[in-house]
Amino acid sequence: MTYPFNPPHRVLMGPGPSDAHPRVLKAMSSPLIGHLDPEFVRMMDEVKSMVQQTLLTKNNLTFVVSAPGSAGMETCLVNLLEPGDECIICVNGVFGGRMVDIAERCGAKVHRIDTDWGKVTEVSQIKKVLDVCPKPKLVAIVHAETSTGAMQPLQEISDLVHNAGSLLVVDAVTSYTGAPLKVDEWGIDAIYSGSQKCLSAPPGLSPVSFSEAAVKVLDNRKTKVQSWFLDLTMVKNYWAGAKRAYHHTGPVSAIFALHEALNIVLEEGLEERWARHEVVHNYLKMKLEALGFKFVVDEQHRLPNLNAVYLPEGVDEATLRTRLLNDYNIEVGGGLGVFAGKIWRIGIMGESCTKNHVNMLVGALEEML
Amino acid sequence: MTYPFNPPHRVLMGPGPSDAHPRVLKAMSSPLIGHLDPEFVRMMDEVKSMVQQTLLTKNNLTFVVSAPGSAGMETCLVNLLEPGDECIICVNGVFGGRMVDIAERCGAKVHRIDTDWGKVTEVSQIKKVLDVCPKPKLVAIVHAETSTGAMQPLQEISDLVHNAGSLLVVDAVTSYTGAPLKVDEWGIDAIYSGSQKCLSAPPGLSPVSFSEAAVKVLDNRKTKVQSWFLDLTMVKNYWAGAKRAYHHTGPVSAIFALHEALNIVLEEGLEERWARHEVVHNYLKMKLEALGFKFVVDEQHRLPNLNAVYLPEGVDEATLRTRLLNDYNIEVGGGLGVFAGKIWRIGIMGESCTKNHVNMLVGALEEML
Repeated sequence: MTYPFNPPHRVLMGPGPSDAHPRVLKAMSSPLIGHLDPEFVRMMDEVKSMVQQTLLTKNNLTFVVSAPGSAGMETCLVNLLEPGDECIICVNGVFGGRMVDIAERCGAKVHRIDTDWGKVTEVSQIKKVLDVCPKPKLVAIVHAETSTGAMQPLQEISDLVHNAGSLLVVDAVTSYTGAPLKVDEWGIDAIYSGSQKCLSAPPGLSPVSFSEAAVKVLDNRKTKVQSWFLDLTMVKNYWAGAKRAYHHTGPVSAIFALHEALNIVLEEGLEERWARHEVVHNYLKMKLEALGFKFVVDEQHRLPNLNAVYLPEGVDEATLRTRLLNDYNIEVGGGLGVFAGKIWRIGIMGESCTKNHVNMLVGALEEML
Repeated sequence: MTYPFNPPHRVLMGPGPSDAHPRVLKAMSSPLIGHLDPEFVRMMDEVKSMVQQTLLTKNNLTFVVSAPGSAGMETCLVNLLEPGDECIICVNGVFGGRMVDIAERCGAKVHRIDTDWGKVTEVSQIKKVLDVCPKPKLVAIVHAETSTGAMQPLQEISDLVHNAGSLLVVDAVTSYTGAPLKVDEWGIDAIYSGSQKCLSAPPGLSPVSFSEAAVKVLDNRKTKVQSWFLDLTMVKNYWAGAKRAYHHTGPVSAIFALHEALNIVLEEGLEERWARHEVVHNYLKMKLEALGFKFVVDEQHRLPNLNAVYLPEGVDEATLRTRLLNDYNIEVGGGLGVFAGKIWRIGIMGESCTKNHVNMLVGALEEML
């Protein structure tokens, strides 16, 4: 039995994927070439250069994991942690919790710092745990918590972590190219992101970058990385080696799309793109507050591109969200974990970050409420 | 710095990716929808049904790993093996060796059966190891060894494995939809494949299926699966659960492409597709032998879709392969491992399996040799 499929035409304003630029969709529809073709290899070099430019890093080990953001998270942790290692992980939402789960699967001893969802981790909380565990292998923290809309300040924490002789691991899935993120300046040692958020490429890839200090830890491992697929001691020969050694078959079409998405980011300009997300966020904020929505996160720690909001009193979020999808073809996200059924997550990321998107959403809400 | 990219127009006759059908490329260029959109969820059900139909299985736990075939391999092994488990792995090429590597990273004790590259594993070899290790957790074997072009008979081995009370794990990356493969009839307990071979979808996804016996082993694990990303105790709630629980963001565009590729397979008919690969293989064989190429694998164990051949005497494979790519835009594969520099691997898979493809290749070779 076969199944014709014609996807509906949605407006994507959830936590990702965001709308893709027609140029990105077109790039993906190019006929395939081999994953070891000299032209493809050259193009991988360009992707690497553009990821470096957009992360503001010179890290040589900058590459793209052939799987979604969660696999990027796992890549960072399985390559840096060995059984028995101690680490500190800050949890203020789903994704911090996921890092704890992965680190424990690596056999690491995790010191977990819990903060209320929607808040950010304070420097003092990390200081306190460093008293108990003075030299953890790494401290991991989420820059942009997609489940709560909180954006974590990193610079002071980075100093603290490096003074302790540890590595700083950062989740930037939702902030990358949509909010200020400066890998070298902020001293981030390992960072992962996703293709389907502010980059506006399809989901399925995870840009990752390791500092020299992180590479040194990788090179000095005593045990094999527990995942073959994510083992950077091998993957790096495919992305950063002198000879492109075959490791696995690279996802050719997805990388075509990512390449074009990165071009679009750099044509716009990184700072201009950050500024656009800020401007459209303020426009959305004004409109939503006028309708009775309330932001979950305090103003100074709000992610501009992923807006977590409580609905106006008496409104059932699931019913309204379904109507928005069915009647207006607009997708927004519901809450996860402790916020399930309680909030919306409205994404204005990449191509979905325009005043037109906000006006479509607000117009629909005005009619329905 | 930005980089315009216009991929060359290649004819793909290597070990994968193969040429994609224009309908598949078009499906991939559809605007994105959310990975939890009801329409996407419905489409995932269709993908599951079509993977079941093409694997000839009723297995409920049939799904697609959001990463390439090697991640499918890792999925099967990390979910079924726990530290201390004994297993038997048959090695007659690169991919059997990769399974050993992964199983050892799981902490399993591996009994390795080595056979010359290009040959298949004999039932008697497995019997002998079962004398030493009478009840391994699983026996893993490669149905279609992409590095050598050998196709492994499975039915007798399956009986032997099940009589020992073990699970049969099979790599079908290169045979799936291009050669007879009957999961339920042959009693395969865990199988993985790839999207970019005979399915002719882009690389990046791995169809996987687990039998009820394999699911029971999964459900009775004493330890957590070491990979979070590939942990089927969670992934199965996304692909086979009553409620689609969020696990990771599914690669929407790649699944659009896979869905269309599966439609094309079923429109042609599975047996008709197997027969087409056989017919074109025989045509290629006749032409190649006339040019002085010699097959690596004995006739009765040859994969029809991946042809490993020694070049005519005195021909430098790398030089000829580069000319074929540069002057004719035709890609064939070189050798891996012990066969590096010694053989070619000529793929006639899916959309690349036509007499026109063979004629393009042979015409170019006639001119160059």
